[in-house]
Amino acid sequence: MEQTQSLNRLVAHFAKLPGIGVKTAQRLAYYVINMPEEDVRQFARDMEEARAKVRYCGVCGNLSEEETCEICGDVKRDASIICVVKDARDVQAIEKTHEFRGLYHVLGGTISPLEGVGPDDIAIKPLLGRLDGAVKEVILATNPDVQGEATAAYISRLISPLGVEVTRIAHGIPIGAELEYADEVTIARAIEGRQRMKG
Amino acid sequence: MEQTQSLNRLVAHFAKLPGIGVKTAQRLAYYVINMPEEDVRQFARDMEEARAKVRYCGVCGNLSEEETCEICGDVKRDASIICVVKDARDVQAIEKTHEFRGLYHVLGGTISPLEGVGPDDIAIKPLLGRLDGAVKEVILATNPDVQGEATAAYISRLISPLGVEVTRIAHGIPIGAELEYADEVTIARAIEGRQRMKG
Repeated sequence: MEQTQSLNRLVAHFAKLPGIGVKTAQRLAYYVINMPEEDVRQFARDMEEARAKVRYCGVCGNLSEEETCEICGDVKRDASIICVVKDARDVQAIEKTHEFRGLYHVLGGTISPLEGVGPDDIAIKPLLGRLDGAVKEVILATNPDVQGEATAAYISRLISPLGVEVTRIAHGIPIGAELEYADEVTIARAIEGRQRMKG
Repeated sequence: MEQTQSLNRLVAHFAKLPGIGVKTAQRLAYYVINMPEEDVRQFARDMEEARAKVRYCGVCGNLSEEETCEICGDVKRDASIICVVKDARDVQAIEKTHEFRGLYHVLGGTISPLEGVGPDDIAIKPLLGRLDGAVKEVILATNPDVQGEATAAYISRLISPLGVEVTRIAHGIPIGAELEYADEVTIARAIEGRQRMKG
């Protein structure tokens, strides 16, 4: 004896989402069937709409509902600096800081030979195509993991000869964390990347 | 600068689900917009369909797509025993054991004065209405928490005078768990509910 078929199907859909196990999928599906019918209809519509409308910016690869994303289309942004990130979520994370006013380039992944992802499988060539002389600096903001570091090193080797300044975001102790609990690699990177105190 | 509007709306929908924070909602929404379009359409349709089709069994309160659920409609089940549970998920949990062949009664909650849930807010009266003489035993399978215990005690006081046997599911050390790590209340209940060894 199982739960009803239509509920089972909904559970199966939720369970396919990343990080959602069967138990959680059941909890979510039960919740949905108890939601106001109009809310469920809106949820379903917005899901289809998001899937249909959201695409990738033709310039930087960020998410967009237009041919070109809002950031690339913003003339007030500094077009001489491009920040290279792994995926569009990283763009959001950096934008939230309101610290960076340049443009982005979304790779759509990182080089990972073990997973069969080579340099040609991510948007490295389109990045090179954007270095038209107006770009003075490329900030490599891939994650500080093996793939992210390898990707940053690879791109750096490609771009440096072109006379563009290539920088890497700083790695170190996160603000608010305690040195005591940081891992050795992070501490080592923090010491390596130490900066002179101002004043 | 924010992510696209249609994506934002999808994130908001996911974030309203129980146990899903904004970060997780974003991860899920990003995943959805990268799913095959047909899969998303099916997900959306199945969500609406489940919400529209799934209702509560008129007899026991279990989930059903018909007037009466499959369990209540199954003549091979033992109609002389009713197992009382808090919600429909508990029915699924018990059904999975294939141990119980009687019928169910879903309360749709437990008595909780602090949250303003009284005996009349859950399906206790409909339960009394089912005790027509054919029912010999009512098993109280509400959770072993304050509300579940209070609800079990309340129902027991109501039903016992009617000449129906009222039982409570056993509480004790879960199978596979170690006594050492069990809390005191569980251990106390396990000792209190000790049973004679067979053979």
